[in-house]
Amino acid sequence: MYGLIGKMLAVPGERDTLIAILLEGTGDMSGCLSYVVAIDPADDNAIWITEVWDSEASHAASLTLPAVQAAIARARPIIAGFGDQAVTTPVGGVGLIAP
Amino acid sequence: MYGLIGKMLAVPGERDTLIAILLEGTGDMSGCLSYVVAIDPADDNAIWITEVWDSEASHAASLTLPAVQAAIARARPIIAGFGDQAVTTPVGGVGLIAP
Repeated sequence: MYGLIGKMLAVPGERDTLIAILLEGTGDMSGCLSYVVAIDPADDNAIWITEVWDSEASHAASLTLPAVQAAIARARPIIAGFGDQAVTTPVGGVGLIAP
Repeated sequence: MYGLIGKMLAVPGERDTLIAILLEGTGDMSGCLSYVVAIDPADDNAIWITEVWDSEASHAASLTLPAVQAAIARARPIIAGFGDQAVTTPVGGVGLIAP
């Protein structure tokens, strides 16, 4: 498995719009076992995204999907930057599903 | 929803044992929507734990379960410390289930 944990910073006032875009793009991502979008209750502009994929290749493939590329294009202008990022190797747990 | 993202450091040589304990304790956690244990491919001692609960109260209640308390007692001697920690408010995604 392949995992990503990352903090994204929205342009002030645009966090809800950015979240909507992030969630829209997740309908059809082969190999995605978990994808959770969360807000940081301590920072009005921060979003945490945690992802689990069956492989790094599946994650890379998802980025080429037209729907995902369209979402990235719409999100880019309202992303102010990125915070902490980690690549992980998930080994187990609860709530890992193949949608 | 209530989320936790955290990095745990195992005593050198004990990461696999610590992971096994972390995964054993997750069989019966009411309100747990996602619980993923991952290793950090860049640090032989590091474990990432990401959790989503239906409420902060459910998370707190889980810590009182005998099975979880037993797991904590067994894990404590082989936990060297903690790294980055974040409390989040999940808002949506894929792979959030009520087991």
